[in-house]
Amino acid sequence: MERRNLRMTLSYDGTDFLGWERQAEGRTVQGVVEAALAELHGRPVDVSVAGRTDSGVHALGQVINFRTDASVPDERFPYALNSLLPKDVRALRSQRVSDAFHARFDAIARVYAYYFQTGEFESPIDRRFAWHLRREPSLPALNSLAAVLVGTHDFTTFAAAGDSSQSRVRDILTAAFYREGPHMVFRIMGNAFLYRMVRSLVGTMIGFEAEGSGPVRMREILTARERELAGPTAPPTGLFLVKVVYDGEPL
Amino acid sequence: MERRNLRMTLSYDGTDFLGWERQAEGRTVQGVVEAALAELHGRPVDVSVAGRTDSGVHALGQVINFRTDASVPDERFPYALNSLLPKDVRALRSQRVSDAFHARFDAIARVYAYYFQTGEFESPIDRRFAWHLRREPSLPALNSLAAVLVGTHDFTTFAAAGDSSQSRVRDILTAAFYREGPHMVFRIMGNAFLYRMVRSLVGTMIGFEAEGSGPVRMREILTARERELAGPTAPPTGLFLVKVVYDGEPL
Repeated sequence: MERRNLRMTLSYDGTDFLGWERQAEGRTVQGVVEAALAELHGRPVDVSVAGRTDSGVHALGQVINFRTDASVPDERFPYALNSLLPKDVRALRSQRVSDAFHARFDAIARVYAYYFQTGEFESPIDRRFAWHLRREPSLPALNSLAAVLVGTHDFTTFAAAGDSSQSRVRDILTAAFYREGPHMVFRIMGNAFLYRMVRSLVGTMIGFEAEGSGPVRMREILTARERELAGPTAPPTGLFLVKVVYDGEPL
Repeated sequence: MERRNLRMTLSYDGTDFLGWERQAEGRTVQGVVEAALAELHGRPVDVSVAGRTDSGVHALGQVINFRTDASVPDERFPYALNSLLPKDVRALRSQRVSDAFHARFDAIARVYAYYFQTGEFESPIDRRFAWHLRREPSLPALNSLAAVLVGTHDFTTFAAAGDSSQSRVRDILTAAFYREGPHMVFRIMGNAFLYRMVRSLVGTMIGFEAEGSGPVRMREILTARERELAGPTAPPTGLFLVKVVYDGEPL
């Protein structure tokens, strides 16, 4: 069948993966997705991804693209692939896109959400998908810190040691904490994010709220562009890549 | 220290347990809780439980009681026990109760919740804690079926083969389907439940809604008291024991 470029949306439970990127050893999301695609095509298939999520990070709407000549109709790829994928990864949607489309380079925005569970003890139900905090933080205090992030800034302070970006300037469109049922959630939308940036931001803001540091101090460490000033990195359990937005789509 | 009767609330992720009740082989919640209590006391400790949940069923507010003479203060037992328990079981609260208190026989009501995830594909995030339905059922249609359950009825139709109750009459106080964030939930409160009764009720109602059977047919099968008339039993993944209520406590 005709060779074409397909875009596909994936969801996964990152708990039992060493992150997205294929590695020499160990179970990765890219590894199981490319293995399923290879089985479907009878040959290796390379995949491009919008967000290379880290070990333990989850996805509700990760986006990939790949070239295919398989006889499966464009929209039926999730049905064909899900029968070959483990249950902690699901393909949700697929569609044909232009040959030029690239999941990573063409993304204009990414949305991440970070879930918290508060209470004296870690909930057995939430332990895979939330960060347990014993103390209930103040939402207004956290939101005064999050507001500092909105806009165009150099986020070097919140880049992990492994970050290899040429520019560390990113545009943050929205950043806010809110309650969703029994959980506190932090949601952030930006054009792109540095390696471990969301977890560094979350860990820093939770620490600042606990010690009483406010938006003035938050702005200070952001503009200082010094990694040593960031707080501890929040654990991956609470982090979800919610969606990736492309040109012409609603933010 | 003085020998006294303690009541304790537990939460657990039932996925990796063969249910509450201790068995000759296999991992059970009772098994790990009694092992932790034995370690704390240096001798075996017998536990009574409010609801003997089945394999794969979860708990947010299971209640147990046991006799102790340990030097741990009454309210500090969760701290002592949680350090000895696996992470899929947590003790949440403990308090001293009268010698006569029995977690099972003194319970006046139990609340169960059943979670559903709807959509074309099973979500990797929800797969441990919800029943995946491809079709979105009608909430009003389901609630017209649930309304039939409220009141005092002989629930023989919804008793599993293994049920050994002398009387199968139970009082259902509330039973309703509703939406909670992205999930559909069924919540039911009753004085007590037969073996696998909630899962049988859920499976029957979901099947009836799909085939268009209404409350008249639901009442027919309830009053017929014939097990063969019930629908399939819903999977344990979606079921949570939410709380157990005792005399003098709000329902």
